[in-house]
Amino acid sequence: MSTNVHVAGVGSTKFGFHPGRTLQSLAVEAARAALSDANVPANRIGCLFVGNFVGGIMTGQELLGPIVAADLGLENVTAVKVEAACASSSAAVRLGHDLIHAQAQDAVLVVGVERMTGASREALTSAMTAAIDQGGEAGSGLTFPGFWGMIMARHMHLYGTTREQIAAVTVKNRRFGATNPLAQFQEPVSLEEVISSRPIADPIRRFDCCPATDGAAAVVLTNETLARKYGTPSVRVAASVMVNGPVRIGDYREITIHDGTLNAARRAYERCGIGPRDIDVAELHDCFSIAEIVDSEDLGFFAKGDGGANVMREPSARDARVVINPSGGLLSKGHPTGATGCGQIFEIAMQLRSRHPNQVPRSRFGLTHNGGGTAAAVTVHILEATR
Amino acid sequence: MSTNVHVAGVGSTKFGFHPGRTLQSLAVEAARAALSDANVPANRIGCLFVGNFVGGIMTGQELLGPIVAADLGLENVTAVKVEAACASSSAAVRLGHDLIHAQAQDAVLVVGVERMTGASREALTSAMTAAIDQGGEAGSGLTFPGFWGMIMARHMHLYGTTREQIAAVTVKNRRFGATNPLAQFQEPVSLEEVISSRPIADPIRRFDCCPATDGAAAVVLTNETLARKYGTPSVRVAASVMVNGPVRIGDYREITIHDGTLNAARRAYERCGIGPRDIDVAELHDCFSIAEIVDSEDLGFFAKGDGGANVMREPSARDARVVINPSGGLLSKGHPTGATGCGQIFEIAMQLRSRHPNQVPRSRFGLTHNGGGTAAAVTVHILEATR
Repeated sequence: MSTNVHVAGVGSTKFGFHPGRTLQSLAVEAARAALSDANVPANRIGCLFVGNFVGGIMTGQELLGPIVAADLGLENVTAVKVEAACASSSAAVRLGHDLIHAQAQDAVLVVGVERMTGASREALTSAMTAAIDQGGEAGSGLTFPGFWGMIMARHMHLYGTTREQIAAVTVKNRRFGATNPLAQFQEPVSLEEVISSRPIADPIRRFDCCPATDGAAAVVLTNETLARKYGTPSVRVAASVMVNGPVRIGDYREITIHDGTLNAARRAYERCGIGPRDIDVAELHDCFSIAEIVDSEDLGFFAKGDGGANVMREPSARDARVVINPSGGLLSKGHPTGATGCGQIFEIAMQLRSRHPNQVPRSRFGLTHNGGGTAAAVTVHILEATR
Repeated sequence: MSTNVHVAGVGSTKFGFHPGRTLQSLAVEAARAALSDANVPANRIGCLFVGNFVGGIMTGQELLGPIVAADLGLENVTAVKVEAACASSSAAVRLGHDLIHAQAQDAVLVVGVERMTGASREALTSAMTAAIDQGGEAGSGLTFPGFWGMIMARHMHLYGTTREQIAAVTVKNRRFGATNPLAQFQEPVSLEEVISSRPIADPIRRFDCCPATDGAAAVVLTNETLARKYGTPSVRVAASVMVNGPVRIGDYREITIHDGTLNAARRAYERCGIGPRDIDVAELHDCFSIAEIVDSEDLGFFAKGDGGANVMREPSARDARVVINPSGGLLSKGHPTGATGCGQIFEIAMQLRSRHPNQVPRSRFGLTHNGGGTAAAVTVHILEATR
């Protein structure tokens, strides 16, 4: 029995608006699609993880593990919800990976799901601050746009990153989203539209922010034996890493450097003996436009401070340059928080199987980066094509 | 490296009222106590699971994994919240067990925590129904007292179980709780007091119900090598099982028989080659007095329908009879939902190390049974003394 872990199948709902749908119904839709894609019978699944962040606060529904398991006809499985804020479902993939790699399970189903639209702005902002220490900085009135606003201002100050460079992240990701049928926003925006959009948390403006999104995405993980047996073109998990990082701004040595991302990336590269130059395509946690720049630096794609300048260049302008967020990213594909981690793995799996609407040619290694809270929970996954 | 999994240390706050305390502060108190009890340095911990059910709904705090990890000084760990309603922290123990058993981790810290007191009755009832399918039976107005009220009426009808036998569960557990310093209720009650207490959901009365409780409990799990290295008298995990069961009353073949408990128990006994007659002491999920009777039957301690009659007999009246809930159980020790699973393991570990205030003499095997929702998530752990 091999200890190699494979993404044997992936599934996703459209990201966007699903008024009237329950968490359960979205999760089941994505899970069924992933099981069908993997060609793995439901009775081979020994463990179900449902990644979800604010389902309790926003919809009053917990116990999603057994509820989704029942709808899928799974019996006598370990079925739990895994929560790590916006990194919930990638954290669940990490756990599933470890159980299969250590031969504790043969096949694990991970579903990420969230319902966020339809709530008032106040209710949504309040729910999101569940990922900030309520006994600490949440009392100051800190919100995530505020947190990233400080980072954006400091990145511009320290490294000379320009307003235009940051806005170009949104322009690029909206352009990619326009041709991704699963994306919430499918209309391009111009640099001028981003820069002149409504102020949110200075210097962050509306089009620097990802939207509130409903959606679900699912991943079937198996060992190599099962992946071969059921015959779907699979993708190997070359590295699955999760680390914790600072939970308070006061614990940062420098808010433009995210040690959670640095440490997770270093461990992931070490695990599979490659470096950032070997990554062909990446899905990063661009919850705000500036986040993509910070993350692309901390992941080693660019030196610290160089991320902004690199956004303006076309990926093809340099040899072997990584293509970032060809899904549209959180900014354009959307950010159904608990579903985002599985959604990123869905995107990279499609790239490595050459089935993506915004296909990056000849991709061998793909990376996902998913962060929860103030980069307090960070996962990095490196996937490798097997064809 | 052994694949044996050990409970190397346990810790707990008092169960009861902790007004003004955060989830984080309760969790950290229990976790520090468990690490100290285990004599395992924090930097040996590779994974932190925080078991919690309604922390988001009741307190607005999620992301407990990284937040608790930061306070404990844990670095670069996989830190997530695990949720399976009232079985959240025992589900997390199950995951920790599997990671250690398969040698994916050497040491895992599991903390269960909940804050429930101080909320209005309506807010608390509403929060608890997060463990009922919101797209299904929750719409009927079903609550957990209602669910168990139906089970109690039917158990009396089918098996001739008497009101006095059911009340005797509360009397017994309150008597045990009176001498457990960690228990929320430390005053005995009489059969008459239980039977004449205020109606809640006919035939369930107030003293048939567990209270709302604040508290935290923690378990350090290690492999056998580490357990020996750090030298604390440890307890072996002989079996760790989780299964899913029906999430809707309509899916029950008979509401006095809980297939989740039956299946989990059968698997647990099979795993360690013992039977229910070998269990010396057990902590069962007595969220209502009738639940202890149903569970004691489904776990195989008594034939279906005989549980009531057995409550009236002193444990010493039969040879090798299991002692049930010497902690006081959920009815008297309290039920901080997300913490209860770890709290039960704390109690059994203390019994098997002969350090319990209500010590069951010469105990070798102890069992915990923890249920979430409509017995939709069920865990059974069998622990074995190593002395």
